Amino acid sequence: MSDPPVLLVMDLAGTFAFALNGALTAIRAAHLDIVGVITLGVITAIGGGIIRDVLLGVLPPATFVDWRYLAVAAGGGLIAFLFNRWLTRFTSLIDVLDAAGLSLFAVTGAGKALAMGVGPAQAIILGATTGVGGGTIRDVLIQRIPSVLSSGLYAIPALVGAALVVVADIGGVNNVLGVPVALGAAVVCFLIRVVGLHFGIDAPKPPGTGPEGSAASADDGD
Amino acid sequence: MSDPPVLLVMDLAGTFAFALNGALTAIRAAHLDIVGVITLGVITAIGGGIIRDVLLGVLPPATFVDWRYLAVAAGGGLIAFLFNRWLTRFTSLIDVLDAAGLSLFAVTGAGKALAMGVGPAQAIILGATTGVGGGTIRDVLIQRIPSVLSSGLYAIPALVGAALVVVADIGGVNNVLGVPVALGAAVVCFLIRVVGLHFGIDAPKPPGTGPEGSAASADDGD
Amino acid sequence: MSDPPVLLVMDLAGTFAFALNGALTAIRAAHLDIVGVITLGVITAIGGGIIRDVLLGVLPPATFVDWRYLAVAAGGGLIAFLFNRWLTRFTSLIDVLDAAGLSLFAVTGAGKALAMGVGPAQAIILGATTGVGGGTIRDVLIQRIPSVLSSGLYAIPALVGAALVVVADIGGVNNVLGVPVALGAAVVCFLIRVVGLHFGIDAPKPPGTGPEGSAASADDGD
Repeated sequence: MSDPPVLLVMDLAGTFAFALNGALTAIRAAHLDIVGVITLGVITAIGGGIIRDVLLGVLPPATFVDWRYLAVAAGGGLIAFLFNRWLTRFTSLIDVLDAAGLSLFAVTGAGKALAMGVGPAQAIILGATTGVGGGTIRDVLIQRIPSVLSSGLYAIPALVGAALVVVADIGGVNNVLGVPVALGAAVVCFLIRVVGLHFGIDAPKPPGTGPEGSAASADDGD
Repeated sequence: MSDPPVLLVMDLAGTFAFALNGALTAIRAAHLDIVGVITLGVITAIGGGIIRDVLLGVLPPATFVDWRYLAVAAGGGLIAFLFNRWLTRFTSLIDVLDAAGLSLFAVTGAGKALAMGVGPAQAIILGATTGVGGGTIRDVLIQRIPSVLSSGLYAIPALVGAALVVVADIGGVNNVLGVPVALGAAVVCFLIRVVGLHFGIDAPKPPGTGPEGSAASADDGD
Repeated sequence: MSDPPVLLVMDLAGTFAFALNGALTAIRAAHLDIVGVITLGVITAIGGGIIRDVLLGVLPPATFVDWRYLAVAAGGGLIAFLFNRWLTRFTSLIDVLDAAGLSLFAVTGAGKALAMGVGPAQAIILGATTGVGGGTIRDVLIQRIPSVLSSGLYAIPALVGAALVVVADIGGVNNVLGVPVALGAAVVCFLIRVVGLHFGIDAPKPPGTGPEGSAASADDGD
């Protein structure tokens, strides 16, 4: 794993990306007011980390002990509320922010799980859970099927990003060509997610369920 | 903060109010049978406190250690089931009970968070989370957009009530004119919520989203 | 209570049953792809145990410490995905698997709660919560009213199964006619659930809500 400062910066960046994403989702998909917008931004931003910390038994969660997470989350929500009209011009921004949060949290989540001494498989799953957790709570609250279920390439890049961190940790590798492993793993996760979104790549459907099986994933990538 | 007996009575009163509210919601909005009615009443009543205790790391939660919470929650659900036809006459009762539970739990939740030694901002957020938590789980289970997202004046009174408790605690004030601070803070929270409901006050909508932005909050206050 | 090996086998059997059920539900009710199918299978399989362990303060949950649960859950999801077309022939299989998971987890959950030293009432509720937890998360994620709310005989058999375990524990009884109490309690729970499903038995509706009150439970038993 890379050193803590890199992880902290990545964690706060992921918090900010998910806060913007959650708040913009609240505006576009659910037409909420300022309280709903900021609340959904904050929940999306800190939900994944809270699930991770509860499962690791790190209580109260880092979000509550360290005020910077709450400040960045609330600030992101407020910025999305104020500059909503301007941000709307970038049509795929909401998906890019989601991919950024997913990638950053999958990597930092796996790193924190390793630091708590859990096994490799558990660290990968907890990392992916951190990445998909906030967005899943967001989708449940506004009554959408969560992306982690409906979008083929959502859980997979998170698992890949987390696995890269775990493999590097086992191998004792901190940097590759001067780039911290954590940063590289997040970039890989991000690229898989964005490429999958752009080309509409789906994971295989169950045998025998026919083309109507694509309905659930088609309304994703909102 | 006021003394423990006041907090315990307020906590049990909030449990009872949310149990009635959750059970009546199960009857009116979701047409559930006796098991569904009592289950939703109990979950609404103890959900907020469980979220608070999990986040504080107080496990098992107070609800499970102290049988009085479960008894009051189940009793409230049963009373709502039995006297449903009579209670239906009071058309706004379901909203008033929700406002009562919100106010009482925001205040007692902030008090418990302070007693566990978390910081002021964290205590305010945990108090508000205690207040809105049970109703949010209730709404998710019966597939409604949670009030905390869709209703402008739902999170705000909870934050105000919790903040009054925290400010009084910092100032070392326990009573104002003989009234315990906790009770006064709950009354303030309750009045903001009820006045907001009565006059249909909404928080500002994002700039540029137009009048259709009010759709989500219009179907609140069921 | 019976001895640990029996409980472990029952716990893994419940995990497998819920994994198959969750994955088949993902295919039939939500038309998800392979990632969504396995994810919903795993969440359904380990969700109840995670809720139980969080509430008991046993963190990280057994699911993460013991790799067998994750392996059985993922394997069950994969088997359901691969043999979906063949499994579909057994029309009530999805309900039978749900009843099996409910029964096994209610019993093992109550046993684990007792082993952690909580009181009898708490052990019964935590056992039932373990049984209904995974299915409730499954239903919330795919936007159905959870069975625990809409189906009269879902929470009740779970409470009965858990109560039998607690009563036997208080009485110091481990076996009845050579059959471990845990196994017998699970069979009782399973039979109540399956008989209730088969005959469409519902718990009483609130007085005065009329026949339209049956709408919510009619679409259960999918």
